[in-house]
Amino acid sequence: MSYKKFDDSDLAFLRGLLGDERVEARDEIGEDYCHDELGGTFARPDARARVLTTEEVSAIMRYAWERRIPVTVRGSGTGLVGGAVPLEGGVLLDTSLMTNIIELDERNMTLTLEPGVLLMDVAKYVEERGLFYPPDPGEKTATIGGNISTNAGGMRAVKYGVTRDYVRGLTVVLPDGSVVELGGKVVKNSSGYSLKDLVIGSEGTLGVVTKAVLRLLPLPKFKISLLVPFPDLEAAIRTVPEVIRSASVPTAVEFMEREVILAAEKFQARKFPDSSADAYLLLTFDGASQQEIDLAYDSAAKTCLANGALDVFISDTQERNESIWSARGAFLEAIKASTTEMDECDVVVPRSHVAEFVLYSRSLQTKHGVRIRSFGHAGDGNLHIYVLRDELGEDEWKARLSAVFEDLYGKARELGGQVSGEHGIGFAKRPYLDESLSPAVRALMAGVKRAFDPRNILNPRKVVADNMV
Amino acid sequence: MSYKKFDDSDLAFLRGLLGDERVEARDEIGEDYCHDELGGTFARPDARARVLTTEEVSAIMRYAWERRIPVTVRGSGTGLVGGAVPLEGGVLLDTSLMTNIIELDERNMTLTLEPGVLLMDVAKYVEERGLFYPPDPGEKTATIGGNISTNAGGMRAVKYGVTRDYVRGLTVVLPDGSVVELGGKVVKNSSGYSLKDLVIGSEGTLGVVTKAVLRLLPLPKFKISLLVPFPDLEAAIRTVPEVIRSASVPTAVEFMEREVILAAEKFQARKFPDSSADAYLLLTFDGASQQEIDLAYDSAAKTCLANGALDVFISDTQERNESIWSARGAFLEAIKASTTEMDECDVVVPRSHVAEFVLYSRSLQTKHGVRIRSFGHAGDGNLHIYVLRDELGEDEWKARLSAVFEDLYGKARELGGQVSGEHGIGFAKRPYLDESLSPAVRALMAGVKRAFDPRNILNPRKVVADNMV
Repeated sequence: MSYKKFDDSDLAFLRGLLGDERVEARDEIGEDYCHDELGGTFARPDARARVLTTEEVSAIMRYAWERRIPVTVRGSGTGLVGGAVPLEGGVLLDTSLMTNIIELDERNMTLTLEPGVLLMDVAKYVEERGLFYPPDPGEKTATIGGNISTNAGGMRAVKYGVTRDYVRGLTVVLPDGSVVELGGKVVKNSSGYSLKDLVIGSEGTLGVVTKAVLRLLPLPKFKISLLVPFPDLEAAIRTVPEVIRSASVPTAVEFMEREVILAAEKFQARKFPDSSADAYLLLTFDGASQQEIDLAYDSAAKTCLANGALDVFISDTQERNESIWSARGAFLEAIKASTTEMDECDVVVPRSHVAEFVLYSRSLQTKHGVRIRSFGHAGDGNLHIYVLRDELGEDEWKARLSAVFEDLYGKARELGGQVSGEHGIGFAKRPYLDESLSPAVRALMAGVKRAFDPRNILNPRKVVADNMV
Repeated sequence: MSYKKFDDSDLAFLRGLLGDERVEARDEIGEDYCHDELGGTFARPDARARVLTTEEVSAIMRYAWERRIPVTVRGSGTGLVGGAVPLEGGVLLDTSLMTNIIELDERNMTLTLEPGVLLMDVAKYVEERGLFYPPDPGEKTATIGGNISTNAGGMRAVKYGVTRDYVRGLTVVLPDGSVVELGGKVVKNSSGYSLKDLVIGSEGTLGVVTKAVLRLLPLPKFKISLLVPFPDLEAAIRTVPEVIRSASVPTAVEFMEREVILAAEKFQARKFPDSSADAYLLLTFDGASQQEIDLAYDSAAKTCLANGALDVFISDTQERNESIWSARGAFLEAIKASTTEMDECDVVVPRSHVAEFVLYSRSLQTKHGVRIRSFGHAGDGNLHIYVLRDELGEDEWKARLSAVFEDLYGKARELGGQVSGEHGIGFAKRPYLDESLSPAVRALMAGVKRAFDPRNILNPRKVVADNMV
């Protein structure tokens, strides 16, 4: 099956529906909308349509379905795997204007909102009201729709889980334009197959999320961070399972190496509280009382010291927390700024294998002659490993990158890991997903795609290969 | 398509594979294996096969797939919706001998086990080791496989979530006999569609779970229960959102009425600590320190008293906790013992509508002339409403039950609820699920079933109607 060639009549349909000011034709579309944050995947849409309502999305999907025009959804384009890049052209369905917070329901502790609301705006809105939306990826300008589409995790997954755990209900426009409600404000649900969980993490390939009902918690009143220097990375990471095994589960456990801290200091032109050690753990605890926090960090500090920590810096002031966490939030940008181009590996391995995996990834620097930097969520086993191009020529870069990735994903498989912890598969990681899954699992995923999108118009060539659909 | 008639050659295949002692033929099979806990759905299998390994399950599925023989999985048969009843005959695949606990991994905080392990044995095993598996349905003799297949919730869902939240990985035998691994020991995962979440709650219609990796938490060292009498049910339930909104989320919030308590006292021949009030809330709190618990229950007690509670009984001894919770655990059996037959409605509504729904369900006693009892999880909106047959004749019972159910599920829909919170759809609740879902959602569920089981051999006529597959 081939797609319809997008022409002036299609553009006229979009303009008739949305008005001229919300539709851009091919040549009017800025480069920014042809790639995502990493830029390695590039394609120009035939039209960019900035939608405002579920009804508009439904009308566009129905139109595209009848004619077989590809549609790719985009939020704020902060993805790292090319998920929002319209590889087959067609319509780029831009949800960034859908920024309404529809309802805060304090009795049910839910927030109903549109997909274009930014993560930082969700946080601000609920925290001002004494409430808490736990998922906390580093990229705060991502949209909530994007977070749902990749099942984003973030730093607090150790204690609070991932986006999936906080999505109670979704309004989804299917490829043929029909609108369905999955889940709702209910806490439990055992009413047929969990299609909601299928849409979460499906990277815009099964349906377009136009509304979400999120679960909120009471905002923990007390927080504390511990910055713990270790003589080396291995000692730091090997301590993590001991800390998590103790009675008070930390909110977050991040590991960081001096090189990355120095890059962040330079990028932010702002000092990190300490950068004398080779490796650090950053632990946070939250709770409803000071006693609870005190108890938790006291026990964690002792565990760290017993496992070789050089010191324990307590950070309980807003200012100090900010200096630590803003550095942590800037790692990706800082590494990116230190090189010409980069790509990343977002593997997740069982927590017990984090140290082994990170040390392995370091060893690939010498083996393949590239700079590799990493940081990540030691507490949940989700690592972000960045391969840096620096001054390598195009062909050399592609070859070395591919060799490093083969090694990294191979090692992850060996350790019982998965290709992606939270950034998704999109287009860039599809070969590695294909390698990691058995033929039976790949066939099931293709069958699911067919059940939702038999004409393969929604975000084609992502997650599942075209020839499987 | 029709199924193959099960004959002696098929029986010989099973006996050859499992040996005579683990295979029973049609007439040797006890009545117990022809229905589940409620008995309203009844069918005799052609053979009961007690499997021990993934390989045996795979061999049976491959055999059944090639010949189109229906296969229905059964754990300990404690279901309430006919999910494990082999409506089309064929093989009853009994997993109750698969009771091995395969691995406790304390570094990754996971427990790997076979599906036939009983919930009470999981609890005992992990708690003896200072660990905690939070899902806590009333029925402790259910298997973990059954819990996964219905996404069981239980009492602690308010704070800890449901079974889905604690399943990290599954080994699943597909209808054609292929064996797939979904998920693993990893904490985060964004590697293609979440087939694991599709299998969870699919009631044995998509695949046979032969191994599960469960997520564990540290065992909270401190626990307390509050038994709070209220002048009436409405006052009790209306207090719940206030309690949950406060900083310390309770582990469980159950509501109970005097009538049900009296039935439990009679059934257990054991006094409940108090039965003078019309309605009660039972709250529990757990935590890592006594201070944390004290703070939580103090705040909750004040909220209850400010909302009309008559008193607050604190239960912090093992003995008193036991007397309260064993009564709570006996509610279902006690109600069952008080009548000739019963059926139940397991709706879930948004927490804010629990009071309205329960009062509505009471009003149906007069409207339809039947006795109705209820109890349930006020904290998560999941209600168990029991309709009692008492002395009604068969036709009258069926007619009234159906009228009550129509009203109950209609009201649930109106309030944004779902047909089942945790018991599933099985066969008995399928008409109500069909009514509650839009045609587009029903079509998607049928498409998912087709993707997994195009020959419709696995637990046919459950969840999705045959004519949709």
